[in-house]
Amino acid sequence: MTETLEAPGLAIDDATADRLFRTARTVTTFAGSDVTDEQLAAVYDLIKWGPTSMNVSPLRVLVVRTPEARERLVANMPEGNRERVANAPVSLVLAYDPEFHERLDVLVPHLPGAREMFAADDEARASAARTNALLQAGYLIVGLRAAGLSAGPMHGIYDGIDAEFFTESGWKGFLVVNVGSAEGAETSRPRAPRLEFDEVSQVV
Amino acid sequence: MTETLEAPGLAIDDATADRLFRTARTVTTFAGSDVTDEQLAAVYDLIKWGPTSMNVSPLRVLVVRTPEARERLVANMPEGNRERVANAPVSLVLAYDPEFHERLDVLVPHLPGAREMFAADDEARASAARTNALLQAGYLIVGLRAAGLSAGPMHGIYDGIDAEFFTESGWKGFLVVNVGSAEGAETSRPRAPRLEFDEVSQVV
Repeated sequence: MTETLEAPGLAIDDATADRLFRTARTVTTFAGSDVTDEQLAAVYDLIKWGPTSMNVSPLRVLVVRTPEARERLVANMPEGNRERVANAPVSLVLAYDPEFHERLDVLVPHLPGAREMFAADDEARASAARTNALLQAGYLIVGLRAAGLSAGPMHGIYDGIDAEFFTESGWKGFLVVNVGSAEGAETSRPRAPRLEFDEVSQVV
Repeated sequence: MTETLEAPGLAIDDATADRLFRTARTVTTFAGSDVTDEQLAAVYDLIKWGPTSMNVSPLRVLVVRTPEARERLVANMPEGNRERVANAPVSLVLAYDPEFHERLDVLVPHLPGAREMFAADDEARASAARTNALLQAGYLIVGLRAAGLSAGPMHGIYDGIDAEFFTESGWKGFLVVNVGSAEGAETSRPRAPRLEFDEVSQVV
């Protein structure tokens, strides 16, 4: 008998497929252990390599750690998500930088006019900022799990958070993610079903 | 001497960290091997478990495989990306279903009023569709790599693709992803730099 380590159809092992997707869950009750800035930097150093259009990389991250800052964040969450945030060890506000083009001299050396192109086209810039930051948010959620952490993302309209935290940076928040150790963490409900591939796809 | 298999700060091994993010690249020239629908289904069966708001799961996937369909896709790409699409073994059009709420009876059993809530609020529905489908697109790009495939995503305005392929389904395309085997695939340029964690983050 040959032992199969790889998940069927995949090139990664079963335990990793479980850790990243199959058994990972959105956590609502954390065991309370710390999440260090070094862990978060390791996650970023993994997922920063994920692809974005032209490498524009507009994702920005606010790490909300101190009790005082966490209170300010909770006060700006929709009521239904306040307790979740209050109970998390650390929360991240994922944001995009609408002025991401200011860094394209570093990020897009292969296309010298990229900065000026985005500077001149507000609509293209806004679309690229939000679209690519959301792709990067997907990478980041996988990356947190790859570091043994649990990620609890919450989508919402976060103008209040922008006003509270981002008046200087101009960043725009779009997702709040509670982060803690995946060990001992609990979820609030049984896992909900998913649609099958043939229900969400067409082949032409 | 102890052998360290895990990447620093991560709970996955170095080879997997490389495969998913660190050495994976956006491919422009594929070696030409096939990508089967079974492989794509395996990728979906992995990433379908990724979190979305309330589990709304609005991502839809058009697999463009036949020469005739591939020609129709190429004709609707911006000129600068036509050759890339023409040279790929398979391309996916990632889309969202603006009427995703019709499936929430299956997807959101934990919140019986979810379908009606989204039916009554066009703005919330449009925002949830696009935001969550983009998160899922991030998961899918990682999932393709986890299956030993290479993913070449291209962001754009795809009204032409919607008119060509989605008049019946009503889906809205937002990302075209060229897919092929990662083996022997080539990229068009050296890897561009990324920003450091302290350049994209604030800790409060």
